Amino acid sequence: MTIDPTLFLADFQSMSSFGATPRGGVDRQAATPTDGQTRNWFRGLCEGHGFSVEYDQIGNQFALLELAPGAPYVAIGSHLDSQPLGGRFDGAYGVLAAAHAAIAVRDRVTAEGGAVFNIAVVNWFNEEGCRFKPSMMGSSVFTGKLDADLALQTQDPHGITVREALESIGTIGDTTVDLAAYVEIHIEQGRSLEDAGATIGLVESTWGANKYEFTVHGEQSHTGATVIADRRDALFAAASMVVAAREVAEDHTDDDGMVITSCGEFTVFPNSPVVVASQVDLLIDVRSTDPDRLARADADLRRRIEGIQARSGVRIERGAEHIWEAKAYDRAGMDLARSCADELGLEHRVVRTLAGHDSTNLKDHVPTIMLFVPSAEGITHNELEYTSDEDMVAGLRLLEQVVGRVVTGEFVPER
Amino acid sequence: MTIDPTLFLADFQSMSSFGATPRGGVDRQAATPTDGQTRNWFRGLCEGHGFSVEYDQIGNQFALLELAPGAPYVAIGSHLDSQPLGGRFDGAYGVLAAAHAAIAVRDRVTAEGGAVFNIAVVNWFNEEGCRFKPSMMGSSVFTGKLDADLALQTQDPHGITVREALESIGTIGDTTVDLAAYVEIHIEQGRSLEDAGATIGLVESTWGANKYEFTVHGEQSHTGATVIADRRDALFAAASMVVAAREVAEDHTDDDGMVITSCGEFTVFPNSPVVVASQVDLLIDVRSTDPDRLARADADLRRRIEGIQARSGVRIERGAEHIWEAKAYDRAGMDLARSCADELGLEHRVVRTLAGHDSTNLKDHVPTIMLFVPSAEGITHNELEYTSDEDMVAGLRLLEQVVGRVVTGEFVPER
Repeated sequence: MTIDPTLFLADFQSMSSFGATPRGGVDRQAATPTDGQTRNWFRGLCEGHGFSVEYDQIGNQFALLELAPGAPYVAIGSHLDSQPLGGRFDGAYGVLAAAHAAIAVRDRVTAEGGAVFNIAVVNWFNEEGCRFKPSMMGSSVFTGKLDADLALQTQDPHGITVREALESIGTIGDTTVDLAAYVEIHIEQGRSLEDAGATIGLVESTWGANKYEFTVHGEQSHTGATVIADRRDALFAAASMVVAAREVAEDHTDDDGMVITSCGEFTVFPNSPVVVASQVDLLIDVRSTDPDRLARADADLRRRIEGIQARSGVRIERGAEHIWEAKAYDRAGMDLARSCADELGLEHRVVRTLAGHDSTNLKDHVPTIMLFVPSAEGITHNELEYTSDEDMVAGLRLLEQVVGRVVTGEFVPER
Repeated sequence: MTIDPTLFLADFQSMSSFGATPRGGVDRQAATPTDGQTRNWFRGLCEGHGFSVEYDQIGNQFALLELAPGAPYVAIGSHLDSQPLGGRFDGAYGVLAAAHAAIAVRDRVTAEGGAVFNIAVVNWFNEEGCRFKPSMMGSSVFTGKLDADLALQTQDPHGITVREALESIGTIGDTTVDLAAYVEIHIEQGRSLEDAGATIGLVESTWGANKYEFTVHGEQSHTGATVIADRRDALFAAASMVVAAREVAEDHTDDDGMVITSCGEFTVFPNSPVVVASQVDLLIDVRSTDPDRLARADADLRRRIEGIQARSGVRIERGAEHIWEAKAYDRAGMDLARSCADELGLEHRVVRTLAGHDSTNLKDHVPTIMLFVPSAEGITHNELEYTSDEDMVAGLRLLEQVVGRVVTGEFVPER
């Protein structure tokens, strides 16, 4: 069997029914019952095509195909979990494309021979990090960047741990998989491919990202009765931090490079209209392709936060931090993918990824190839996220070619 | 029976056990089961002393004493509901003091005669406005400032209406009470009495307050993948509004007068670390004793919010607004209270109230007297809120004197 676009698109439609939201998106937060249903559906799909499906200690889902008994695995994958009102393409496209590419490659090498690696299609646990922090949890544990026990004890806002949530949907195990290489395809989540009229992004490097959790401690008092001078207003201080973060992005961006700062989570206590807030929990991240620029922006943000603390009488506690350095993907892998895209006649372009992906972790572990297909208008983490059928199928064809060459030893040598 | 400080303080301690929090405060949000328990306890206390207890259409609780059959009522009261982690004095002190003062007055006029009014001790529904907005709901409906049906349909964040909540705790009825005057005693929730070494505040006027509900509409996107220029970030715009409100307070405060602005409620959707927020709901209020200064500050805030909307690509929707004009309390009532305080040898001081109280509504309806006792360090809407036993008892003695003179026609004439 070679790539069957009709079957792929039909499977994509079935997959998108899990956690479907009214405006065409999905809500499949990590280890919820809906995530569990999606995982069970995907297990069934893979088993129907001859894969054996197993889970590791942090709930990563591996669908295994044995092509070269005893050899290590080439992993292909992404994630099936989503944001609360996320798009149906982010992650899920890459997992389904991985399965279809693997099936086609298996059939080809079974006929033609030459496989020196096995294939593992992977659905990494909790890439999104909205229910359980940090994001990219499954691939972080798999690559040894995050302690498994620490991850399993992480609680969601209702106090449910990762371990309890994974056990409740029955998708946790003890398998281990020895990898030789990793390949991932994902929607761009930006507009550079669309703007350039290209179908394929060859990802050259990640942006560096520093993510910080802050808790601002103020003093609860009556908004109506407490004069400004007597206030220790956690909400005012936290709002000032959000504004300061934006100013840092603007001040450190010029024609030579860009800094992006964000705050998407901001929780106020006790959050009552007539009460000066006693506490705000917020997350701020700072990203740049350029490590020096990132370091300068980060130092500037710290200085501004110290100033806010001093001026507003609050105490700003810096909690956990997660640092991802800007790093290049494997150059030989980019060259291999480019050559495959040329053979297929697909327009391609070298891009960097602003967003984190599981491949951000994997590339520090094994040689890794990261591919993008376009996102309409760059809209993502949104129900209106959209990638055309043509672009999805073009990406799938490319993925199949790339994986076909990786399993026969063209990217990393047989061990 | 005259005032019995030991019995009053024992009752105060019993009352404070309802919804008690670990650090000495209470959590008795409006029409919760805990509010219901407190109301039932208070009903029992009043009935034990010969009051008859009734509820009106919005759940205001009236404990009635008939002293002059057929005459209108002098109401004395405050509120038993609290903030989520509120103090045990705010409101509750005034309700319990009202009951004890009423009992002592009843016993005295029964012996001496001279009552031209009846007495109603009132526990106004939902003064705090944290679960159901707006605050001062019960007294607003009672005084015709808020439509009863509209108030009853108001939903809490879980979609439960005021009517459902009141029915579930069984404290709603159809009584109506004809008032001739209103007297309230409350903790100051500021530090002016403590700073001046005074025991009693004679409240001269309210501050004006404009309260606005805003919804900021942005566009959900991926924080990591969406460059700043492409963002329509509701959280950034809302944080800018909080900072702008503070700047308005500072810019419009000088030696001649003060403006206070506040935001205590600020709710982010979807509130995920890697998602640019699509929506923030927030409340901002602007207060001043001076109507012209308030109007200038309000206009300045509107201009700044328009600028934020234009710069950040969001749409800022202005929802409900609640306007309380700065207004004087009855001058003759202040004089009467001053004369009672002098007779009791209590240090007193004329003050204004920054906070809203049920008397803010009542004073526009019937002649009203508002009294304060000190709050330690001005701490309020906080578990650490504190008023000494001595100050509470001094306030109770004053209240009894004031009510005694009001029921015999010294404040407003017999009808």
